Amino acid sequence: MTTTTLELASGNCALRRATVADLDAILGLLADDPISASRGDTGSAADRPAYERAFAAIDSDPAQQLLVATIDDEVVATMQLTVIPGLARVGASRLQIEAVRVRSDQRNLGIGAAMIRWAVAQAPVLGAALVQLTSDAARVDAHRFYERLGFAASHVGFKHVVPPAEASASVER
Amino acid sequence: MTTTTLELASGNCALRRATVADLDAILGLLADDPISASRGDTGSAADRPAYERAFAAIDSDPAQQLLVATIDDEVVATMQLTVIPGLARVGASRLQIEAVRVRSDQRNLGIGAAMIRWAVAQAPVLGAALVQLTSDAARVDAHRFYERLGFAASHVGFKHVVPPAEASASVER
Repeated sequence: MTTTTLELASGNCALRRATVADLDAILGLLADDPISASRGDTGSAADRPAYERAFAAIDSDPAQQLLVATIDDEVVATMQLTVIPGLARVGASRLQIEAVRVRSDQRNLGIGAAMIRWAVAQAPVLGAALVQLTSDAARVDAHRFYERLGFAASHVGFKHVVPPAEASASVER
Repeated sequence: MTTTTLELASGNCALRRATVADLDAILGLLADDPISASRGDTGSAADRPAYERAFAAIDSDPAQQLLVATIDDEVVATMQLTVIPGLARVGASRLQIEAVRVRSDQRNLGIGAAMIRWAVAQAPVLGAALVQLTSDAARVDAHRFYERLGFAASHVGFKHVVPPAEASASVER
């Protein structure tokens, strides 16, 4: 497994692809965030099979990279990168960043900034000419953080929650 | 090829996956839009190979659906759908909508609304619990359009344009 070293003022941090053994730690990061917890990510045992299926779907899709940052082999942060091919901007792929979380007791050490800078540097390597993400309008500190890292708040991010499919729904592809 | 009929007040419109034969029409839609044109999508012949490579990348990725809407077999609109697996929201996939364009002489007929409603209805069929998109902050009319269709402007969309890779860049995966 390739591990990248991210240099922080307070010491180093390792960045690597997540394995299924990291799933509990990643779920802990999701449950640790009040906005995520309000969306149902509370770390309940009953939800475990759904998370395992989702992990397998991410891990088997070559367009996805689910990453964890570790200090002393302990997971302190995570993010997911997705390469999306497209026609706009003269056929440029986009690198999308989702699900950025830093453990609450490890914030303000520069871990998040180092991860995002690494993702931006990876974009051309992955054939992407644009890096994009959305941030909940309530996360005002996060907005300043992304602007400091070179992102422009040029767009409005729209979300539409949809009810799950009926078990009997026909699947037409 | 599966073709879906979208019912409009002014008559019907067909929605289907784009083929490479639709590429010129889709590029015409990109060039027809002032914001896209400002990003370099001017329909120049020199850019053709880049668009063809991008079309092939989209077409061969099972997570992507590049769609065209046609009236009398003429392409009048396009959009791209991407399924993104994820851990957040109890392992929910997201359906992302990108590159929505309606030909300028075919606007206000309800084609765009019918396409977006169809995409939202497809989300559960594709295993997605959330539909998301970003819209340029300058497209104020588009924002009202998405809100009418049930989307919440709950997020800020950040973009970071990155320079292309040096020809000699190492590709580490």
